Amino acid sequence: MTGIDLAALAATTLARCDAVAQCTEQPGQITRTFLSHAMEACHSRILEWMEAAGMTVSVDRAGNIRGYYAASDESEIPERASRLVIASHLDSVPNAGKYDGVLGVMLGIALIEALKGRRLGFGIEVIGFSDEEGVRYGLPFIGSRAFIGKLLPPHLARLDAHGVAMFTALDDYASQHPDVVNAAAHARTRAYLEFHIEQGPVLDHTGLALGVVETIAGQSRATVRFRGRAGHAGTTPMFLRRDALAAAAEWLVTVESEARTMPGLVATTGRILCEPGAANVIPGTVQCSLDVRHADDKIRRAAVRNFLDAADAIGDRREIEIEHLVEYEQSAVDLDAALIALADKAVSDAGVSPRHMTSGAGHDAMIVAAAVPSAMIFLRNPDGISHHPDESVLAEDVAAALAAGLHFLDHFQNHLHQSIESEPKSCTT
Amino acid sequence: MTGIDLAALAATTLARCDAVAQCTEQPGQITRTFLSHAMEACHSRILEWMEAAGMTVSVDRAGNIRGYYAASDESEIPERASRLVIASHLDSVPNAGKYDGVLGVMLGIALIEALKGRRLGFGIEVIGFSDEEGVRYGLPFIGSRAFIGKLLPPHLARLDAHGVAMFTALDDYASQHPDVVNAAAHARTRAYLEFHIEQGPVLDHTGLALGVVETIAGQSRATVRFRGRAGHAGTTPMFLRRDALAAAAEWLVTVESEARTMPGLVATTGRILCEPGAANVIPGTVQCSLDVRHADDKIRRAAVRNFLDAADAIGDRREIEIEHLVEYEQSAVDLDAALIALADKAVSDAGVSPRHMTSGAGHDAMIVAAAVPSAMIFLRNPDGISHHPDESVLAEDVAAALAAGLHFLDHFQNHLHQSIESEPKSCTT
Repeated sequence: MTGIDLAALAATTLARCDAVAQCTEQPGQITRTFLSHAMEACHSRILEWMEAAGMTVSVDRAGNIRGYYAASDESEIPERASRLVIASHLDSVPNAGKYDGVLGVMLGIALIEALKGRRLGFGIEVIGFSDEEGVRYGLPFIGSRAFIGKLLPPHLARLDAHGVAMFTALDDYASQHPDVVNAAAHARTRAYLEFHIEQGPVLDHTGLALGVVETIAGQSRATVRFRGRAGHAGTTPMFLRRDALAAAAEWLVTVESEARTMPGLVATTGRILCEPGAANVIPGTVQCSLDVRHADDKIRRAAVRNFLDAADAIGDRREIEIEHLVEYEQSAVDLDAALIALADKAVSDAGVSPRHMTSGAGHDAMIVAAAVPSAMIFLRNPDGISHHPDESVLAEDVAAALAAGLHFLDHFQNHLHQSIESEPKSCTT
Repeated sequence: MTGIDLAALAATTLARCDAVAQCTEQPGQITRTFLSHAMEACHSRILEWMEAAGMTVSVDRAGNIRGYYAASDESEIPERASRLVIASHLDSVPNAGKYDGVLGVMLGIALIEALKGRRLGFGIEVIGFSDEEGVRYGLPFIGSRAFIGKLLPPHLARLDAHGVAMFTALDDYASQHPDVVNAAAHARTRAYLEFHIEQGPVLDHTGLALGVVETIAGQSRATVRFRGRAGHAGTTPMFLRRDALAAAAEWLVTVESEARTMPGLVATTGRILCEPGAANVIPGTVQCSLDVRHADDKIRRAAVRNFLDAADAIGDRREIEIEHLVEYEQSAVDLDAALIALADKAVSDAGVSPRHMTSGAGHDAMIVAAAVPSAMIFLRNPDGISHHPDESVLAEDVAAALAAGLHFLDHFQNHLHQSIESEPKSCTT
């Protein structure tokens, strides 16, 4: 890596995040959704940067922008090289920060620039996915689903807020982009690497610039309803109450205290609705959301069972009727052990003690991992603020991510070489 | 009480409550607010019943309907007799039950009927107050405030939902009722008696038909706000959270458990607002209402202080910023000891073990007690349901109330006689 000014490249990377932030549907804030004009605008900026770095650029049938940096030997047999994909997403939540998703794409471009034209034994495809947040269609990961061939008819039939079906939006998009390519991953794609800001405070808390994601946590979503009896706040003695909120509060305390005893488990009630909701009426009904995540599906499922049992026990004791419904369960996704080992080495080479992390949030890597060996490297997020204009990242951490990325490319080249050597020989002997 | 069929009179009383329930602003439910057409309609029914019972009927400047049953000696010197007022209110909350307020007025009329023309040593004024619930002007007790001369300019300047000032509404009313009388209590009013359903479950729980109210509880209303830090439900470990809802839940459990240890204390959070309120976001801010009541103002104030201190302590421990505001404080009102003693005897004579109660709800008696010695008798409320179409009362309890009421009239006559005899003689000797 001699001769590369990573600090300058980090500054360029951050300036590009600023430039992408200007591409918004809402002046004064950052909002950039699937197939929007704001997305088109950012594509035209990214196309320039990718082409200048020596990539061949196209957009695909799912609205992803893709830059390909060919391998050293592809002048002889084009399209035959193994590929590494470096990607993240370009869409945002409403009123977002500048770095969620975008930073991962900009780091991919910067890594190609850092190669200064040097070609490797594998091609590198940098992808900016069109949708990860799911704002427009209430379905996240449209870009990466299409990439692994899992954007399915029920997804395509979804309507946006204006009643436009996803397939109609995609057809319109394709008709305006005559050179649009297939969204599916190239057959020789061997690995997927995603850089992303952490969206949480763990690296900041431990004082580390980078972290290596081992697992994307599984998630359960449930609703718990407490039905007691509404009553007059003044005329009903404490001992004759069946107060739904008092029961819910006892349960919330139990959930928090039990979640704290299990390392890596998080349990959250983010929404609570209390009826009738007047200051002088004892609550008759309370409804709580429950979000539980852990890297180990067995631990998560046992915790959910445990929390719902606790609600039942509280209900029995207080004569409160309990209903619960598990609405959604998503299994944990383990990232690829061999790529994690490469990422560990790369992060370590960049001078950061490699720390394995569980991602509590979903990312494109979670989708891609079902089809392509995948790895993720997190960048420290000061104060852990994300999905918010105050989202930030340190320039020095971006430089560390670039260093780690370049080391990763080296290690991946060796890895590819070894795995090709260990592949069974062809039958021509 | 020989020759009076109290069961039949109770049935008539309940049938009149049904008839009044037909006077509503909302077909299909009971809603009858201050100076409404529904109130006019119920006045015309009540006027018939009062006149048939031998009362002189008028409406007053505050929209109260008043029937006067003269004393035995008033043919000689009209308006010179001492008066007992038997009253409650005729207005309702939206979608109310049939008995809250109305039953007390109907019992007053039935007691006059039970006298069968017999005149007593004092006049009896039965009043149906025009507003106790405060629905139209957000100010309760308009009728009884006017009765004691405490309907003040700031009250009169209030606007209803249509922008009509209370004084305008009252002027319109007066212009349509040329015979309207002054709302103030007659100078010789010596006592006030109010029958009311309990609006709570205590009598039902103890198996008693009637209860004698000793005190109307004081009340504090406060808001407690918990400000933590919102965050991603998946990416923020339990130990790095400043979850406003978890803090609020801990506080709610503390408040309930401490309120249970103090006899007669009630503490209620009926409203809880949680922001941002998404299932996958750790709550950043939670706001809770707090309603605390007790018959003893010192105990109530100490309890409020204690609850707010507990919130502060939880906030300190959890790094949650706590704000609290005591918005409203109303002192407890003790009813008249001499009248309570008469009510005890009357209830006992009616075959019910007299039980002293604190009213956790406000009633007209609370207002009137500031100017006129007052007593209240509660009727059992099966299941304690009030302010609801399911509000109910047992016919046998209405008969018991009538019996107690008739005994009260006898005891009051003796009481009045004794207190007149004990008054200092005039200076003519």
